[in-house]
Amino acid sequence: MINIIKNYKSVRNHTEYLCSFLELEDFTPQSAAFASPPKWHIAHTTWFFEQMILLKYDKNYTVYNKEFSYLFNSYYNTIGKRIARHERGLLTRPSVKEVLDYRKYVDEKMLSLLSKEIKEVNTLTILGLNHEQQHQELLLTDLKYTFSKNPLYPVYKNENYVNDTNSHEGWLEIKEGIYEIGHNSDTFCFDNELGKHRVFLEPFKISKSLVTNKEYLEFVKDNGYKNSKYWLDDGWHWLQENKISKPLYWEHINDVWYQYTLSGLIKLDDNAIACHLSFYEASAFAFWKGMRLPTEFEWETAANNLNWGQRWEWTNSAYLPYPNFKISDGAVGEYNGKFMINTMVLRGASSATSKNHSRTTYRNFFAPNTQWQFTGIRLAK
Amino acid sequence: MINIIKNYKSVRNHTEYLCSFLELEDFTPQSAAFASPPKWHIAHTTWFFEQMILLKYDKNYTVYNKEFSYLFNSYYNTIGKRIARHERGLLTRPSVKEVLDYRKYVDEKMLSLLSKEIKEVNTLTILGLNHEQQHQELLLTDLKYTFSKNPLYPVYKNENYVNDTNSHEGWLEIKEGIYEIGHNSDTFCFDNELGKHRVFLEPFKISKSLVTNKEYLEFVKDNGYKNSKYWLDDGWHWLQENKISKPLYWEHINDVWYQYTLSGLIKLDDNAIACHLSFYEASAFAFWKGMRLPTEFEWETAANNLNWGQRWEWTNSAYLPYPNFKISDGAVGEYNGKFMINTMVLRGASSATSKNHSRTTYRNFFAPNTQWQFTGIRLAK
Amino acid sequence: MINIIKNYKSVRNHTEYLCSFLELEDFTPQSAAFASPPKWHIAHTTWFFEQMILLKYDKNYTVYNKEFSYLFNSYYNTIGKRIARHERGLLTRPSVKEVLDYRKYVDEKMLSLLSKEIKEVNTLTILGLNHEQQHQELLLTDLKYTFSKNPLYPVYKNENYVNDTNSHEGWLEIKEGIYEIGHNSDTFCFDNELGKHRVFLEPFKISKSLVTNKEYLEFVKDNGYKNSKYWLDDGWHWLQENKISKPLYWEHINDVWYQYTLSGLIKLDDNAIACHLSFYEASAFAFWKGMRLPTEFEWETAANNLNWGQRWEWTNSAYLPYPNFKISDGAVGEYNGKFMINTMVLRGASSATSKNHSRTTYRNFFAPNTQWQFTGIRLAK
Amino acid sequence: MINIIKNYKSVRNHTEYLCSFLELEDFTPQSAAFASPPKWHIAHTTWFFEQMILLKYDKNYTVYNKEFSYLFNSYYNTIGKRIARHERGLLTRPSVKEVLDYRKYVDEKMLSLLSKEIKEVNTLTILGLNHEQQHQELLLTDLKYTFSKNPLYPVYKNENYVNDTNSHEGWLEIKEGIYEIGHNSDTFCFDNELGKHRVFLEPFKISKSLVTNKEYLEFVKDNGYKNSKYWLDDGWHWLQENKISKPLYWEHINDVWYQYTLSGLIKLDDNAIACHLSFYEASAFAFWKGMRLPTEFEWETAANNLNWGQRWEWTNSAYLPYPNFKISDGAVGEYNGKFMINTMVLRGASSATSKNHSRTTYRNFFAPNTQWQFTGIRLAK
Repeated sequence: MINIIKNYKSVRNHTEYLCSFLELEDFTPQSAAFASPPKWHIAHTTWFFEQMILLKYDKNYTVYNKEFSYLFNSYYNTIGKRIARHERGLLTRPSVKEVLDYRKYVDEKMLSLLSKEIKEVNTLTILGLNHEQQHQELLLTDLKYTFSKNPLYPVYKNENYVNDTNSHEGWLEIKEGIYEIGHNSDTFCFDNELGKHRVFLEPFKISKSLVTNKEYLEFVKDNGYKNSKYWLDDGWHWLQENKISKPLYWEHINDVWYQYTLSGLIKLDDNAIACHLSFYEASAFAFWKGMRLPTEFEWETAANNLNWGQRWEWTNSAYLPYPNFKISDGAVGEYNGKFMINTMVLRGASSATSKNHSRTTYRNFFAPNTQWQFTGIRLAK
Repeated sequence: MINIIKNYKSVRNHTEYLCSFLELEDFTPQSAAFASPPKWHIAHTTWFFEQMILLKYDKNYTVYNKEFSYLFNSYYNTIGKRIARHERGLLTRPSVKEVLDYRKYVDEKMLSLLSKEIKEVNTLTILGLNHEQQHQELLLTDLKYTFSKNPLYPVYKNENYVNDTNSHEGWLEIKEGIYEIGHNSDTFCFDNELGKHRVFLEPFKISKSLVTNKEYLEFVKDNGYKNSKYWLDDGWHWLQENKISKPLYWEHINDVWYQYTLSGLIKLDDNAIACHLSFYEASAFAFWKGMRLPTEFEWETAANNLNWGQRWEWTNSAYLPYPNFKISDGAVGEYNGKFMINTMVLRGASSATSKNHSRTTYRNFFAPNTQWQFTGIRLAK
Repeated sequence: MINIIKNYKSVRNHTEYLCSFLELEDFTPQSAAFASPPKWHIAHTTWFFEQMILLKYDKNYTVYNKEFSYLFNSYYNTIGKRIARHERGLLTRPSVKEVLDYRKYVDEKMLSLLSKEIKEVNTLTILGLNHEQQHQELLLTDLKYTFSKNPLYPVYKNENYVNDTNSHEGWLEIKEGIYEIGHNSDTFCFDNELGKHRVFLEPFKISKSLVTNKEYLEFVKDNGYKNSKYWLDDGWHWLQENKISKPLYWEHINDVWYQYTLSGLIKLDDNAIACHLSFYEASAFAFWKGMRLPTEFEWETAANNLNWGQRWEWTNSAYLPYPNFKISDGAVGEYNGKFMINTMVLRGASSATSKNHSRTTYRNFFAPNTQWQFTGIRLAK
Repeated sequence: MINIIKNYKSVRNHTEYLCSFLELEDFTPQSAAFASPPKWHIAHTTWFFEQMILLKYDKNYTVYNKEFSYLFNSYYNTIGKRIARHERGLLTRPSVKEVLDYRKYVDEKMLSLLSKEIKEVNTLTILGLNHEQQHQELLLTDLKYTFSKNPLYPVYKNENYVNDTNSHEGWLEIKEGIYEIGHNSDTFCFDNELGKHRVFLEPFKISKSLVTNKEYLEFVKDNGYKNSKYWLDDGWHWLQENKISKPLYWEHINDVWYQYTLSGLIKLDDNAIACHLSFYEASAFAFWKGMRLPTEFEWETAANNLNWGQRWEWTNSAYLPYPNFKISDGAVGEYNGKFMINTMVLRGASSATSKNHSRTTYRNFFAPNTQWQFTGIRLAK
């Protein structure tokens, strides 16, 4: 039980560490429905512990501020009303200080409750900490999106999160056969990874390296964004409607390529792994190359022999339930299952993913037009 | 080669038979981007033979009217510009008579060309006829959608296409194992069915009957459309935005349930198989029942022991390429592959599907909010 | 009373004359919410006589088809529900023949009723005929808009309605003073013209001629559509959002200017009076010229000394009530008053206006982005 | 010249006084395209002095930060690019502190320049101060709109700005005649007030009092928002589309009426003057009363005998140019003229208007759906 307390403190502190680079003005505004403000992230992750744990397992618990359960709910329909997702940035109050006080209050109560070593509390706390780690990465991606709208190109900190390079080359070959997929539940995983089961895979090859900026730039220069034949139909419409002709955050100024990063606007590094690509872009690039994206089952089967963790890697698998997937009762059950439509699976992790928050069975998922995550491309054939 | 000529005449005639129940005024208007007018269907299917076959294999062929290649292109980016999909209903000219003349002209040339027994022509003609059969069903579904907007509830003909009932009950059990999926290419199939390959299936049960109106009505009465917990997140948003509280074409008048059909407004038949349900509705119904939809692989494995063909049956499989799926070169290659995103697979066929246009490997696909097709629900567990 | 019967027949026949140039396929489709189909126009004008006159003054009158009162209501909230304005084009039924039968039926009843020489009937019939004359011009403008969406450039008839030229030049000067405005009610006028009243005008000059295509083309060539300083703010936004760079129906093909007309695509006639300009375009052109548009009071005061009737002339007057304007009770009261916001007054008439349907006090009105009417520009200073 | 310096300091200080009630978090977010953030207001008003005066008249002036001219431009197309109006709330940087430093820097330079007693500088400074006073009121109305989106009902300060009552009753009668309208330019006025000219008015009566909450509530209770006959057509559509059934900021909780104010949520005061009404609501209320709104000319003629200044009073006059209205050259010329379409004139001033910023010739203007200003209703007949 010492571990869970240590872990709790460590994860919670990391969120505040990430905020230590912000100006007070950065905490509130929201630049898109999908990009929540830092203040909302730090309050919502706290709200999760209050709603899912303290209110159920600590009989003496007094809610910090009853309005907050309305303000900081994300998408849990089970727990009352919530403010519109795109209006989170209008909550100038409570102040950042008040939200930090809320965190302190909940932390004290949680630490006291954790010391009682209740099994269900531990289980839910581990879920809450994994939830908070997810929001740590979102805090960075959402902030980057908001900062990118500012012509001043604000600097968050020196680390830019996107200059990683590949350490391996060539192709890994996997033979046909029946393979086991999914997580066994001894250690933590999300419900969508559960249910170890078998799949049959035809033989395939998967790249040991991720696509670099240089390779992607060749696609751009070869009129990749102007030729419909490379693109899925929805992807082509998405390009036209949004007038997209290059990756998010890339800029072409006086014939030099730049990209906006969390350390400001920098020259595009040819050798760095391409980042912030949508599934549509990944799919078009693969088509242009005469190759394809791996399925999530191919990826998981190959993962132990790959170097991964620098980019979330798009797979050509739709996010769907595993056989025997079960949705939990209550609000926790809303966590994953209801998004199993119109989204694609990403595997791996990124340089912005929190430590100890990745494994080969992890199933991340986003809509195919998603660009603001730290996503990249691994090819298969 | 006699067969192909006979087949050509038969399919082409059937399109005109379907139009024989229309008033001249019915041919032109369009009620939604997805619901093309009859005139467009009969011209576009003709255009297909002209563009894909006559222009390539008949050296003496003179295009009937060069404007038509622009007017009646559907989504083939490869072949020049096309009018916006939602503006097809504005083409009051050419007149219906002129389009029928166009059909006659192309038919003559095609029959003459077919008599030369050229292999590639035969292959492409079979594709063209299957394409036309798809448009025959679309002609009915699109017309129904347009008619449904008219408070006069127009009657198309006596057959209503939706009063089929189930002939079997109970559950079919399938054991775990490796199964073969896909079509081998001796007989016609679309490119998306190709590539016979193996999948591993965990054991499952699949219903021998499809969900009836009576069963679906219980879901409606149990506040199925008001309870977010049954719905996928996108489905729930779809309900709210479109204020949907019942299946398309159902009406509740003075406490009696009716449905609009191609033979007019009729009382809802309890025993008939439920129809015109979106994937979202199918998925929510299954969740409410405590069951699920089958995958397309489960369906295909079980199909020979099922009674199917009354409704297109939603599966819980996203429409994605089979291993080794190849996209053909040129315009024909745009047929299927570019829609492999954000769509779900339907298997089977419906009472509105043209004869000789169904098989157990057929992969139909539509976006999950699609209601205007003759779709239904088969449960699995 | 002979006159009213003669007049009734004449106006009603003219509507059918205008339709005699149509193909049957042209009657139903609708190309924009504002552009109703011919079938709707010929049914709605008939509906007006049925609803406003026959149902009130002919005790034996049997409604032709009670569904029609719902189908062919335009915007009269007072008279029950109506189908959405943008869905008029989906009414493939009733057929054109049935609507023409409806016209005959109502005409018979009306002629019989008119022979009874009832004063209120006469008054309302005159209103109904003026209403029908308005729809005669709309029938042409709406048809032109629909035809213009067809790449075949359909020909309606030989008359193109836009090749008029100016017969006078120079400026008319009007002295300052108190002038009388408005119609006195001895002859027919709409309610919005009523209430003769006085206005004070500062001295002004008004052009004897309307702006020609040649003059307007100079504005286009001088980057008139690219320079925000000429445009009202809403006009500039309208340009950007709709990507407008030239008048509606103008086309620039291989460096030659054309315009689509009701007699097909023709070369732009330099000397013809410019047509189909929005208020925003008229205002920007005037600004570029260093001049302005006249107010409706200036126009009315000068009208007897002007040559007018070729284009509806935009004024710089918002459409607002005259002093002592009264809204009639009942449905007829909805005719004009409720549109007195966000619209601008046009004075005069156009070459597409029905005969005997113009006078110097006539107040036409449209939103400032309106292009599809036969509108033009007269300058003042 | 002492006066201008004193005046400069006084107006600039007042902006900062208004901000003294804010939390730092309140300065940045934006709740609607029309509601700019406080930080933007305090920067933009400063930018005005820099761009319009210092850059032209102070040869040694160094721009504080050249990025700011892009960030804090409002709608002046003449002066380079500007960030999208609805994205002002995303500028978390520069910080509030930095913007306040910018104010100090510009103030120092301005005070130094003003001491030189240059005539054009004085004239433009007076314009700049009036511009800043306009933004002082906008700062309050915009802030109120943002705060109103927060379920916590934030309190700005004790003054609520909306509890004024009427001090006079009955009707003022004005005889027919020629009246002079407009400002003569000895003292400051905006360009849209210029050009003293004559209008002829028919006799009218105008109310000495403004409509109260109690009177307006009667309209609400009499189904005023459910009966289309009271409403202008655009107004009725606005109600339906936005589901409006009561004035902005009113709430009906457990059968008690409340309103959100800058001092929080309070019970609706029956005797207070109704506030935050759109032109559509004002017009519908007047129609329901069997009366009308005054024109701006009636208002100006009566103003000296009215008690005004509590609410901006909607008139039934569209905002259009006076005879001989001239647009100034350069950026200053964009101030008023380009908004002379689709807006209605408001006269008077409100309890939130800055001191010394009102006169009987002042022409305020907003689109007819505007609710977030401190607007009210004065009836005429």
